[in-house]
Amino acid sequence: MQVNVERLMLDIEEYAGYGKSDQGGVTRPSFSQADYEVRERFIKELENMGLEVTIDGAANIWGRLKGTGEKHGSLVIGSHLDSVPNGGKYDGPLGVLMAKEIIETLLENNVTLDHDLEIVSFTAEESNDFNLSTFGSRSFVGRLNAEMLENICDSTGTRLSNELTKAGGGLDKFSMMAAMGKDKQAFIELHIEQGQRLESKNIAMAVIDRVVGTYRSNIRVIGQSNHSGTTMMEHRQDALTAAAEMILALECKCKESHSGVVGTVGKLNVSPNAANIIPGQVDFIFEVRGETEEKIQHTVNAIQDVWKEIAQKRQVDVQQQTFLDQKPVVLDGEIVRILQNAANEMEEPFMTFPSMAVHDAAHMATITKSAMVFVKSIDGKSHCPEEYSLPADIEKAGNLILRGIMNMDRELSQKTMVYQGNQNIQ
Amino acid sequence: MQVNVERLMLDIEEYAGYGKSDQGGVTRPSFSQADYEVRERFIKELENMGLEVTIDGAANIWGRLKGTGEKHGSLVIGSHLDSVPNGGKYDGPLGVLMAKEIIETLLENNVTLDHDLEIVSFTAEESNDFNLSTFGSRSFVGRLNAEMLENICDSTGTRLSNELTKAGGGLDKFSMMAAMGKDKQAFIELHIEQGQRLESKNIAMAVIDRVVGTYRSNIRVIGQSNHSGTTMMEHRQDALTAAAEMILALECKCKESHSGVVGTVGKLNVSPNAANIIPGQVDFIFEVRGETEEKIQHTVNAIQDVWKEIAQKRQVDVQQQTFLDQKPVVLDGEIVRILQNAANEMEEPFMTFPSMAVHDAAHMATITKSAMVFVKSIDGKSHCPEEYSLPADIEKAGNLILRGIMNMDRELSQKTMVYQGNQNIQ
Repeated sequence: MQVNVERLMLDIEEYAGYGKSDQGGVTRPSFSQADYEVRERFIKELENMGLEVTIDGAANIWGRLKGTGEKHGSLVIGSHLDSVPNGGKYDGPLGVLMAKEIIETLLENNVTLDHDLEIVSFTAEESNDFNLSTFGSRSFVGRLNAEMLENICDSTGTRLSNELTKAGGGLDKFSMMAAMGKDKQAFIELHIEQGQRLESKNIAMAVIDRVVGTYRSNIRVIGQSNHSGTTMMEHRQDALTAAAEMILALECKCKESHSGVVGTVGKLNVSPNAANIIPGQVDFIFEVRGETEEKIQHTVNAIQDVWKEIAQKRQVDVQQQTFLDQKPVVLDGEIVRILQNAANEMEEPFMTFPSMAVHDAAHMATITKSAMVFVKSIDGKSHCPEEYSLPADIEKAGNLILRGIMNMDRELSQKTMVYQGNQNIQ
Repeated sequence: MQVNVERLMLDIEEYAGYGKSDQGGVTRPSFSQADYEVRERFIKELENMGLEVTIDGAANIWGRLKGTGEKHGSLVIGSHLDSVPNGGKYDGPLGVLMAKEIIETLLENNVTLDHDLEIVSFTAEESNDFNLSTFGSRSFVGRLNAEMLENICDSTGTRLSNELTKAGGGLDKFSMMAAMGKDKQAFIELHIEQGQRLESKNIAMAVIDRVVGTYRSNIRVIGQSNHSGTTMMEHRQDALTAAAEMILALECKCKESHSGVVGTVGKLNVSPNAANIIPGQVDFIFEVRGETEEKIQHTVNAIQDVWKEIAQKRQVDVQQQTFLDQKPVVLDGEIVRILQNAANEMEEPFMTFPSMAVHDAAHMATITKSAMVFVKSIDGKSHCPEEYSLPADIEKAGNLILRGIMNMDRELSQKTMVYQGNQNIQ
């Protein structure tokens, strides 16, 4: 039994038609016109497949294929259908449409699982104008609640609560999600890698065993603004040259770590920012991601040690305010093992590594056994029209999940524990 | 014969009352309400001193003290009365009010020079909303003409030509300035140093023998925007880390030059400038100043050589567009020598060095024998409320110019040449 990758690729192309951007990408934030249209199509398709469709409080769309009833609850596959502005066709839809393809394949082959099988499309996974990324999964697992969301509006003053109602959800339906969650026995999310680890090894797919933690600080470097002509090099306290040295030290320490730690300064502002004034202040955001708390902390400490020397040497003041310290999430060992075994049965090479970005699966991991599969990205590109993965690689990943689901259906015992872990993710 | 520094310091304090800012500085751009008020006061004071007041096309204010007529034309002392927003009390007014003090001193001592002696206050020397710094002197020497200025407006749509007329000048009076210029035999400008060369040697004043050239380029560093989590350190083409290395290379090459060359990145913008995106593009302005064309070019070349290596190593594209290549201005050797001799007669230590910033004197040097005197700045601060120079240092510089003017009056022979040089300054 194999997924039909031609059918899936056609489906991906058709879905990419909703919110097509002038630059050839997809602009489909949640609650946009294109999103409402794609929701309508998606729900109709699920209904046509005979699935029982539910829209929860967060407007997440669930479609349920009944199993034999031998085993309690459902196995869930899914991701999200929203996109960033001028994004790609794969980030999100690949995971949702592959779930649909797997259900189609089971239906065509008259296979009935012992568990129910569910497809889910989570609302507003991407950064959005409500400042609530991974909104749907966070709401579903109870990390966002109706009270917190009551007064949330976007930049144009549109109320989130109104949009939720319009999309078939609503704050009044939030309380039903806790009960829904208890029924889920496992969650698998397929996603493009958005990096180049697979491509650099020429391997099609990876089983994801954890989601990295993310640490972010606001850094303010305070030097002395001065005339760019009259202030000799030796009399300067240039906040920008100090920041430049700090940025290179950060890069150097992350490269030295050899352990999948990455560090970035993505946002930086210079003040007063005039050609003829030596910068008196530089503000930047410093981010470090790593697979364990220890690796993150070790790298951050090493960076800060060098920064202290730089500040002293250059007579600048460095202020730091940490505003995010999201712990790494360990995904479910049993699901990871089942997926790894399925790949071995298929005799397909695969890698196992952490996800360097947060996905809905990281939140679902707090309420059920969860893992992810990544498929190779071409040139590591994502969030842009050039985002692409090869159909042959997508096919392998789809067959891996199909086989994985069949094996889980056989092997997974009844869920008895309530997940307590990973409460720190934001 | 000595200047009266107490009287001068009181004068500086009183002038600082026009356009006093909330933060304790002076906000007096040309054509502001405060500027119109200070102009009125200044003109009244010149008239009360018995000077013949002329306002030229650029609204520069001239006051003429008649000499014996033994020698043709006038010696001119002056600077400007406008300020940057929240600037200091000294940048500009010191040079104008010292000219007034010197004339007062001569009058009190019943000294009549062989030349006429003129005071000038140039219009809009500072960067301003019309984007025309050193406006008054550039207009006076013919580098700006009525045709170029006809349609100039500030950001609020105010026409420069209307303001000129309101201030007693006007584009219709521009043609008179060429004739006025022919009459000037010398120009001396007193200014604060705005740096720390004098303070670091604990010397009160400097004779300025040249004005540095300024080279500015727009630099665009193009890398690859990417996800800050999923893109491993070795797969990045980070435009900001590349720019950081370029900025440090620039600093290093200027420090190595040991020849008074200074280089600055004062303005820098990151794109897309988000915490979780590796910067795909950085734009910055790269400035180098130096006392000779050769020194500037040598430094720029050395920097660009390193930049090429950085671009290659980091696989980023570096684009450069030079938009300013202002040549150094050599000030008048005879005036410089007369001022140096005067300092020696006074047995006062002094330094001789180039001005690292452009002043009105750099433009006046194209039509008459010009030089400058700098007085020590405390902590090198300027363009801020903390701008300060010690009265004792100001007094020495004033007496130097007083003595210098007397000596010039004796020593200077009739101007016979028309100045051709230094046409490149902007």
